[in-house]
Formats: sequence, structure tokens, C-alpha cells
Amino acid sequence: MKKAAIIGGTGYGAIELIRLLDSHPYIELTKIISQSQHGELLDETYPHLATYLANPMEELNVEQLIHEIDIVFLATPAGIAKEIAASFQDTSVQCVDLSGDLRISSEDYQTWYEKKPASESLLEVAAYGLTEVFQEKIKQTNIISNPGCFPTAALLGLIPMLENNIIESKGIMIDGKTGISGAGKNPSAKTHFSTTNENVTPYKIGTHQHTPEIERYISQVTKEASVKVTLTTHLIPMTRGLMCTMYAPLHMDTDTNNVIELYKQYYKHSPFIRIRKPGEFPSTKDVTGSNYCDIGAYVDKRTNQLIITSAIDNLVKGAAGQAIQNINVMNEWDEKTGLSFLPIYP
Amino acid sequence: MKKAAIIGGTGYGAIELIRLLDSHPYIELTKIISQSQHGELLDETYPHLATYLANPMEELNVEQLIHEIDIVFLATPAGIAKEIAASFQDTSVQCVDLSGDLRISSEDYQTWYEKKPASESLLEVAAYGLTEVFQEKIKQTNIISNPGCFPTAALLGLIPMLENNIIESKGIMIDGKTGISGAGKNPSAKTHFSTTNENVTPYKIGTHQHTPEIERYISQVTKEASVKVTLTTHLIPMTRGLMCTMYAPLHMDTDTNNVIELYKQYYKHSPFIRIRKPGEFPSTKDVTGSNYCDIGAYVDKRTNQLIITSAIDNLVKGAAGQAIQNINVMNEWDEKTGLSFLPIYP
Amino acid sequence: MKKAAIIGGTGYGAIELIRLLDSHPYIELTKIISQSQHGELLDETYPHLATYLANPMEELNVEQLIHEIDIVFLATPAGIAKEIAASFQDTSVQCVDLSGDLRISSEDYQTWYEKKPASESLLEVAAYGLTEVFQEKIKQTNIISNPGCFPTAALLGLIPMLENNIIESKGIMIDGKTGISGAGKNPSAKTHFSTTNENVTPYKIGTHQHTPEIERYISQVTKEASVKVTLTTHLIPMTRGLMCTMYAPLHMDTDTNNVIELYKQYYKHSPFIRIRKPGEFPSTKDVTGSNYCDIGAYVDKRTNQLIITSAIDNLVKGAAGQAIQNINVMNEWDEKTGLSFLPIYP
Amino acid sequence: MKKAAIIGGTGYGAIELIRLLDSHPYIELTKIISQSQHGELLDETYPHLATYLANPMEELNVEQLIHEIDIVFLATPAGIAKEIAASFQDTSVQCVDLSGDLRISSEDYQTWYEKKPASESLLEVAAYGLTEVFQEKIKQTNIISNPGCFPTAALLGLIPMLENNIIESKGIMIDGKTGISGAGKNPSAKTHFSTTNENVTPYKIGTHQHTPEIERYISQVTKEASVKVTLTTHLIPMTRGLMCTMYAPLHMDTDTNNVIELYKQYYKHSPFIRIRKPGEFPSTKDVTGSNYCDIGAYVDKRTNQLIITSAIDNLVKGAAGQAIQNINVMNEWDEKTGLSFLPIYP
Repeated sequence: MKKAAIIGGTGYGAIELIRLLDSHPYIELTKIISQSQHGELLDETYPHLATYLANPMEELNVEQLIHEIDIVFLATPAGIAKEIAASFQDTSVQCVDLSGDLRISSEDYQTWYEKKPASESLLEVAAYGLTEVFQEKIKQTNIISNPGCFPTAALLGLIPMLENNIIESKGIMIDGKTGISGAGKNPSAKTHFSTTNENVTPYKIGTHQHTPEIERYISQVTKEASVKVTLTTHLIPMTRGLMCTMYAPLHMDTDTNNVIELYKQYYKHSPFIRIRKPGEFPSTKDVTGSNYCDIGAYVDKRTNQLIITSAIDNLVKGAAGQAIQNINVMNEWDEKTGLSFLPIYP
Repeated sequence: MKKAAIIGGTGYGAIELIRLLDSHPYIELTKIISQSQHGELLDETYPHLATYLANPMEELNVEQLIHEIDIVFLATPAGIAKEIAASFQDTSVQCVDLSGDLRISSEDYQTWYEKKPASESLLEVAAYGLTEVFQEKIKQTNIISNPGCFPTAALLGLIPMLENNIIESKGIMIDGKTGISGAGKNPSAKTHFSTTNENVTPYKIGTHQHTPEIERYISQVTKEASVKVTLTTHLIPMTRGLMCTMYAPLHMDTDTNNVIELYKQYYKHSPFIRIRKPGEFPSTKDVTGSNYCDIGAYVDKRTNQLIITSAIDNLVKGAAGQAIQNINVMNEWDEKTGLSFLPIYP
Repeated sequence: MKKAAIIGGTGYGAIELIRLLDSHPYIELTKIISQSQHGELLDETYPHLATYLANPMEELNVEQLIHEIDIVFLATPAGIAKEIAASFQDTSVQCVDLSGDLRISSEDYQTWYEKKPASESLLEVAAYGLTEVFQEKIKQTNIISNPGCFPTAALLGLIPMLENNIIESKGIMIDGKTGISGAGKNPSAKTHFSTTNENVTPYKIGTHQHTPEIERYISQVTKEASVKVTLTTHLIPMTRGLMCTMYAPLHMDTDTNNVIELYKQYYKHSPFIRIRKPGEFPSTKDVTGSNYCDIGAYVDKRTNQLIITSAIDNLVKGAAGQAIQNINVMNEWDEKTGLSFLPIYP
Repeated sequence: MKKAAIIGGTGYGAIELIRLLDSHPYIELTKIISQSQHGELLDETYPHLATYLANPMEELNVEQLIHEIDIVFLATPAGIAKEIAASFQDTSVQCVDLSGDLRISSEDYQTWYEKKPASESLLEVAAYGLTEVFQEKIKQTNIISNPGCFPTAALLGLIPMLENNIIESKGIMIDGKTGISGAGKNPSAKTHFSTTNENVTPYKIGTHQHTPEIERYISQVTKEASVKVTLTTHLIPMTRGLMCTMYAPLHMDTDTNNVIELYKQYYKHSPFIRIRKPGEFPSTKDVTGSNYCDIGAYVDKRTNQLIITSAIDNLVKGAAGQAIQNINVMNEWDEKTGLSFLPIYP
């Protein structure tokens, strides 16, 4: 039984980690760290956790963690995570950072996050935790940079087609749609029920920090120096769920059946990826509460485009679930350990 | 490993049983019976189950079930269930009927359901599966009548107060609020998104068939010949979740602290009942996806009433979860087996 | 053409006043006063008002208002409104206060609002603006205390039955359900989409400040010294809409048909009250965006209770619409002026 | 006062026409025709219309309509509308067809609708009622083909940029998002609350019949023989509202400010089009209940794309509101007559 701690214990990412770890057979969650609420019991903020957690949240004490803990999940905001992650760099602690701090180059980080980046050595040691694609590097490090929610859905849909030369890497449009939990727990005009309900709200058009993240890992796969994609994101009046609808120019003559077959081949050892039959497309509800990523595709011969839809639960495969999946891979446990439950439906 | 079958495999109750049984360590779901869709794969209707179920649904063959199956869940509509349940009456098959067929007296059934009732002998052998309250009888039979969703929430809130003589059994009002999944899977004007969304809709005012069910089991507890309650029900624009807000005349001088303490005493061995602190009340979201029933109470000294709120997930504690909880009790497994997961939040 | 000003221009009440006044043939909205945002254009906060309002919001200048303005709507929070209302007490300005400051006795105000009450003379001059019931006093004053949203729905359902001696005033339960806009524009954990969506949340159980308001005006109608009702309130995952489900002990032998007939008689000159046929009950969506209050009733002979459901749009009949209706009555315009549009459906 | 009839009186389009016509000063709605429900009162199906409509719905009698009625709105399904519209072809009745029957060439109609098309002469006489763009032709005919909801939002966003040569007509992607009312009133699995709520559902990917409609009117504007666009559509868990997020290759070097300025120029005489400032984008809620189309745009220099978002209420500007706007233009009334109300917010 490995001992785990969550740092940044009161956001939605942390809450979802708690839910999932509770069913994990090899991990025991022993500490929840919160700088703002240490000393409090978590169920004062989250009554749905009543009767579950006996101990109050604690202050961060890195030294103590290194001695007592095997696995650390960083559910802290971007900017803070990189400092804490650095403390575990040369230790045996397995650390998964759910923030954006370690995902992109320091140059891009400065441009898109407008903050001081992590050290180059930390960025180098961190493996990008898109489990299905980068499993080899994940196994060889103790620091994981867990992917963003949009990049997870986008890259899982795009990479098999790019690797198979079905689509071009130039001219890709990604139309992202996310539930409101993606905007975090902080109350604001943007997350107020009365403004968000019965509403589709575009946000960060042309400026979303997940753009360079998607570009970087497309680049790694296609070995091209520079890849540019267009990403737009929209808040949808639902709590959970994320879809990327993607449009990519075809690079060769193909058809829907062939494309579906290539996806199935690519993901034949990936238990969390489900490919829809030709003519069918996933809905976000098909994956709610689960670690699945469901993918559908259509070759539009009229316009010579491949249309891909990719659906995840933004808090599971888009955050906490993939974090645990990465820990499973790092420990050479079955990838599905603690994650093999069905979606909650309806 | 016990073998289980679900009869009536395509409604929401069945779908939720499938989700929950998938995590149960001692039950293997081996057959899904559907008269209307046998021969089809379930994931044609429910893509969220893709990759999960390999075998097509089957036709009902009671003889075969008796030989091959240990546990049967009846997720068929009222009127049909009682015929099938009767087939298992003198067998060793453990049978949980999720319909209303076996819950009330034949007289009340004729009045409120306007159908021919089950045989007296079947009604007699069936135990009412409100697990926390009727555990002894549940252990002694092979036929369980699983409670309705409103009766589950209402009775779990009322019975401890009635048994402790805190409230009178005359003059109880139950204001029920349920998510739309409670209206079932059948498309109708009543379940259409455009009519239901942004709407509170009262229905079956004064005529809801859960009324005599609540009255009957209050009667059993208070040993009164006749108990009458008022139940109103409202459709709320959410998929899951059910709340009963209840008003009962106080029978003695008491206060909120005392009442909360009595609830805690009453449910001290009931892992799925969580009692809120004085001044706090559960929301339906606190129990989503879980088998919990959360209860809050307030003594209103101004009007000499006890106000009780009781929240469940209508598809879990209000249906499939409680069905499995009853099977756990019948088999002398820990009550929480396969059901000990946290609510999904937010 | 009368000139109007709104004081407290950026909350939902004000926004709804702006929408409704825009269609009023005899009122011109010439000033919007906001202490916190004066100098700004309203469409910076509310882009849906783009192209509508040319002038920036202004600071409060009571003297100027008295000279330039005929009608003032106070959409300020409780506690602030009473000071401003007092300035118009002996002027010719018609003033409608949408806050709770002038609705209840100073004693009750201190108890339930925990603030210093308005002066007795102001409380005396203010007419309670439940238009259908208190029209005579409304015509004789220049200060209106606009009713709260729950009291509007509750009293319109209860008063005809109390005046006709159908129900007793003792033992009335009011189960209130409101859309989230009722909690105001301020972002908080309570109004966050992710916590509110897919959720029913009871709040202020036993402590809601609308309780003494309902009691006071029942008292005025029944001429009883002290009336006590039980009010509970629940947040429902919808933006607009409010329903009160009410339970009252019958005072005489009657039936549903008779009760419906009495309602129709009572409201025969009230264009905004619609009574449902026996067996039918209004949904909140039936009145969305309109000034209607729809009422249904059922005599439950089993329990000797009258069950009443009353539905309004909390921002229209529950706030801005009734405010304008009161101004219409004060000016002897047709009650429906500027308010005679149909509900928006679906 | 002109007399109007609605044919197909019980769908959402008709219900919205009723709401809007109720406020129109020059049109009196005198007949509602329903083949399936004639003889019934509309408020039996739609209680929100109670007290409004005294006369029962009638059977279709074209001869009588020609003699008694000035304006006919066809809110019948595609396939039926064209037969009825033909009856008014050489009469003085002004006829607006809200179905897709008269929008595209007979060839495209056969391909995309898989039905027999309208006669060539009827197609010729019908003007495409995208009011802001085709006003001249609208004034010269008595048969209007009212645009589809997606084409309205898409074309209003694209045409000014195409006419100004800002974007290329090849390579345009339109990502459409619509509220569930767009799927009509018919109950189905697709419109069931429990499947639709908390869900984004792509539908008709590559096969939506609005695709050739958008292409045809781009063609008319650009004078190109053949234009191909990619349209995808998604059901969003809200009742009303429609957004098109569009991606188009830039044809020249430009920037966001310039593009916004060109939009403002193009629509300077169009009271229902509101252009957002650079950096701002409309939400669907900004136009709910109103006839506005709000547009935002962003020049993405990184990828050389123009990103456009265009928001309408699918039942108003996307159906009933634009129909009335067209009638206003045909009668040389102010375009805003009966439509100049503010959006309902929140």
C-alpha cells in the first residue's frame, strides 16, 4: 500500500482525486494539504465527504512529505505548483502536477501564462502524462506533468491521424466545449448560475493557454519544428464534460471506415479509448464520471476534411483520473487499477 | 461468486444496476433479459456501455433462470413484475422486485395502481426492503419488495422520529422533489427537455401511488390501524436526485440538538445514513451517484413543527443501490459491499 | 410621459425593470443610479443591453431627483433602501421600494433582518404593494413597499381561501422553490453553477425573513392578532421561476370544484391571476418572463387539507413587474399597461 | 390592421409567432390552423397561453384563407409547407414559409431532404428572407422562404467578410451549437431531459440540411458557381439559443479592429445586428427572447484565420422573429415593428 498526499486540497481536481483514490486498492490517501484551510475538516466545505475523512487538512511540510509519502498529487494553481514540484525532483516521491506549470517550454510559458517558468532541469525531467501516447517516458521519471483537459481530448483525437499521415498538421481547428467545473471552484460572474445557465459563452478566443500545449505535443509526434493550431473554447451549461470538435485537412484520399479502423489499431492496447462506429459520435454524457475518452470521426469528402469529435469527463480523464492512470503506469500496476468503473448514466 | 440476472434490461433502473454490479466483488452479472430488445447488444441503445457487455440481451426463460441464476433483479414495470416474482416464490433464487407490485396491500394496490394485485401469499412472503429499518425480515425471505424512491427518503426521515414519539403520525406533509430520471426513460411531453428545463412541475397531486406505501410502513412502525399522510411531488430540472421536505406536528417539547442526537442513535449502525449538524441541511448533490441518504432536521418552536429534509439519489438509494444493499443483507455480506464509493461531486 | 429613475442599477431587479420599462408607453426611464458603478455604461456589465442605453450611470442626488423625476424604483439592498425612501416621503415623487425595508413591523424587522428599522411614520405611509389585494391603499400613497417574491406567490394563493373561511390560518405550511436568480447577482459558493446545477438546496430553514411578511398580511386579512406559518425555501437549478406549494387545514367541508370557483370569483377583476382547472396545476415555466401568477388547488379529503400551488416569475410578478403594476394603479392607468405580454415558452 | 393566420399551430415556431404577434401593432392573429388538433383550444396543450386565445384551432381551408387573411405563416414541417405555399403563389396573401422547403435548389433539396422538391416557379418567386441581406428581393414578392436557424447565424457573420474580400469562401468551418428547442417539440430519446441534460451531443455531422442552404447564399453573394462549407451541429443543454463559431482563411492582411469596423459599416442600417468590441464575444444569453444577432470577431494572426462568433435566439431571429421582420419589410413598416424589446436576462 503506497501512501499518497494531495497538495491543494480544496479545488475540484483535489475533490475528484479523493473520490477516485477512495476506490484504489494500492493507494492510501493519508494527507490533504491546504495552505488556506489547514486545520479545518474537509467536510466543512464539502458535506458530501461527511463521515469519510477523520483528519483535518495540514500545512505544507515538504521535508515531512518526502519522508512519509510515496505519491504526491499537486492540485495547486499554475505558478505555485512548479516550486513544490521542484522539491521532489531528486527524491523517490512520485509527483503528478495537475497544473500547467510543467507542460510547455519556458518560452511559451512566459508568453501564454505570463509568469516565471519552471527551471529547465525540472521541465526536462517531467514527462507529459498523456498516458496512451507517452507511456515510455512516463515509466522513466518520477515527475509527471498531467495534461490539460482540452489537450487531452484534442491530442487523443489528433495524434493517431497525424502519425498515420491521414491529416495535415497545418490548418487544424479545435472547437472546444467544456462544462463549468472546468472554470474551477472560485465564484465569479463567469461561474454564476444565472449567467452561465441557458448560455453558451466563448472565452479566451485566440489566447487560451492550452494552445501551445497542443502544438508542442503535435510537434513531438510529427517532428516538425513549428506547428500552429486554432483553439477556441466555450463554456457550456453543464457541470462536467468536455468535447473537442476538430477539423483537419486530409493529407490523402481515405474514407470514414478506414479512419475508424486506424484509430482502433492505434488504441488496441488502450483500455480507456473507445472508438465509435462509422456514423456515430460520442456525447459527453457517455463518459461522465469515468476515465474514458470516446472518439468519433467522419471523412467529409465534399470539403476534404476529417471531422473528429472527442469526449472526456474534464475532471477524470481531463484531470484526476489521468493522474491516477499515470501513477498506475509508473508503478507498473494495471493501467485500469482503481479506474475501471462504468460511466454514470443518465 | 453468485450469478445474477436483470429482467427488464433497458430502463434507467437496470442501467444503474449494471453500473453498480460492475463493482460488486461477489456478484457476476451474467444475463440481461429484455422482452422488447432481446437479441440486441445493450450498447446499441447505451453507447456509454460500449466495450463492456459482450452478450446480447435474452428472452425471458424462467426455468432456465431458476437453474442457472442465484439472484434476479426485476426492473420491469408495475403490473408485469408480480407475475415474474411469483415464479421465484418457492425457489432458492433471491429476487428483488424494484417495481411497486409487492409494496402495499392488495386493496390499496387496486385503488392506487388500478391493476390486479399480486397473490396474498406472494405479498406475505415479500419483505419490504427499506434496509435500515426492516433488516430482520429481509434476512428471512428470498423475495424483496424494493421501496419506492419517495418512500425511501420519507420513511428514513420519519421513522426514527415516530419511534421516539417526537412527532405525531397525524398531520404529516411530505413535499417531494425529484429529478427527471424519476419519470423513467420513456420520451413524452413531460420528459422533453424544452418543457422540463427551467421549470418546476407538480404532478400527481393527491394521487401519487407512493402515498399508501409511506402510510403502510408508518403504520407498521407505530402500530396504528390507519395513518394518513399528504404527499406532493414535483419534477425538478435535474437528472438525478430526490428530496423530501417534511413537516410533522411535534408530540413533545424538544429541540433541534436533541432531535439530531436521536437520529444519530437510531442510525448508529447504518453506514449509508448521514445526519447533518444542527443548522445544516443536505442538498441532493451531496449524495449523487452514491447510496447515501442524508438527513437534516429543525425544530420550529414558533409553529411547533419538526421540519425534516432527506436527500437521496433516486436511482441509487431510491432504486438500484438499495436493491444491492438488500442482496448484501440477504447473503450476510457487509451491507456496504460494492456500494462504498463516494458521491460524485460537483 | 412620466420620468423614472432606478436607484441601484446593476442588480437583477434593476435589469428587469429596464427590460419592462422599455415597453411601457407612459414611462420614460431617464436615469440609472449606481453608487458602485456611476460613470460606467451599463452595457459594460450587461452586453445584452448594448445599443440601448446611451448615458452612463449616475451618482445618487436626491434633491435633483425630486425636481426632475416623477417615479423612483429602489432596487437597493435591504438596509439602504429605507434611508432613500424616507427622502421621498413628503414629496410628489412616486417611490416603489423593492427591498424588504418597509414590509414588516419595526419589531419584526429587527428580529428577522437584524438591522435598524425604518421610521414608524415611513412604515405607516408605505402601502404594501400586493396589487390584487391592497389596491385601495396603493392608490392613496406615494410610497409602495413592493412584496417579496415568496410572499407574493404565497399570499395570492392563501388570501382568497382565508377570506372565504375555507382554510384555517393556523397550521399553514409553505414549501417554497425558487430559481437561482432569487439569490441575487453576487457570485458566491451558493450561486456557483457547479454547486447549484443538478441540485436542490434548502436554505434559511426556519429563519427566512419572508416568514413575518407572510404572517403580517395574513393577519391584516383575517384580523387575527398573531398568525404563524411555516416557510421553507429551496434553491432549484433554474434561473427564473418560483413556486409555493402550500398545505392548509380545511376549516369547512368543501371540494376542489368549489375552491376553484371561489378563486375565480375572488380574482375576476385581476388580469394577472390565472386559475387552473380542477386536476391541473401550474408549472413555473407557464409564467416565465410575464407578470402572471398561476394558481392550482386540490382538496385532499383523505387528510382534510387544501393543497395550493402558486407559480410566478420571481423577477417579474415577484419584483419588477409588480412594481410597475403598482405604479400603473397609482397613476390610474390600466393595470396591464406595459405588462400585457405573453410568457416566453418554451 | 392586417389579419394573420398561422398554419401548423402547435409547434415551437408557431408558439413563438403567437407570443411575438401579440405585441405587433399592425397585425391581428385571427386564425390558428392545425390539422392534427383542430377543434381544440391551444391552451389545452399550452397552459401558458391560458386566457389568451378564445377560439379553437381550425382545419386548413385555403380558399377561405385567401379571402379572409392578409398574412400567412407556414409553421408546418418540411415537405408539407411547399404544397400550401403554392396555393398562395398568385394571390395577394403574404406568405412566410418557416420550413426548409423553398430555401435551396430542387436538386439540393432532393439530395439533402430526400423529398420531392417544390415547383421551379414557386422556388423562383420565393425570396430568401435573410432580412439584412436580401431586403430588396423581399420587398418584391409575396412568398418568403424564411432562413434556417444555423444559416441565419452563419450567413450574418460570413457575408460581410466575404463581400469585403476579408476571407476566402473555400475552407470555411462552421461549428454550430443549438439549444434543444431547435430539435422541435416531438418527444424522442434525443430530446429527453435525462439524455440531453449535462450533455453535448453532436448530430447530423456532415449531413445537416442547412449545409447547402449556407452554401447557396454564399454563392449568390460571391458569384461563385460552387461553394463548399463544413457545418457541424451540436445539441447543448439549454432550451433556447444558437451560436455559430466560424473559422475562415484570411484573404488579406488585416486585424481585428479593421474587421470590427467593416462589420459596423455593413450593418449600420440594421437595427438587429450588434457588433461586439475587439476582444469581446457574444454569449447566446445576450440575445435570449429577442430578435438580435450579436457578432464578435478575432483575427488570429498566428494561424491566418478569422474567427467569428454569431449568437441568436433560434426561435426568434432564427425563426418567428425574422418571419415578422420580413413581413414588416414587405409592408414597408419599420423593420423593428413589434420586435423592439430587450433580451430577457438573466
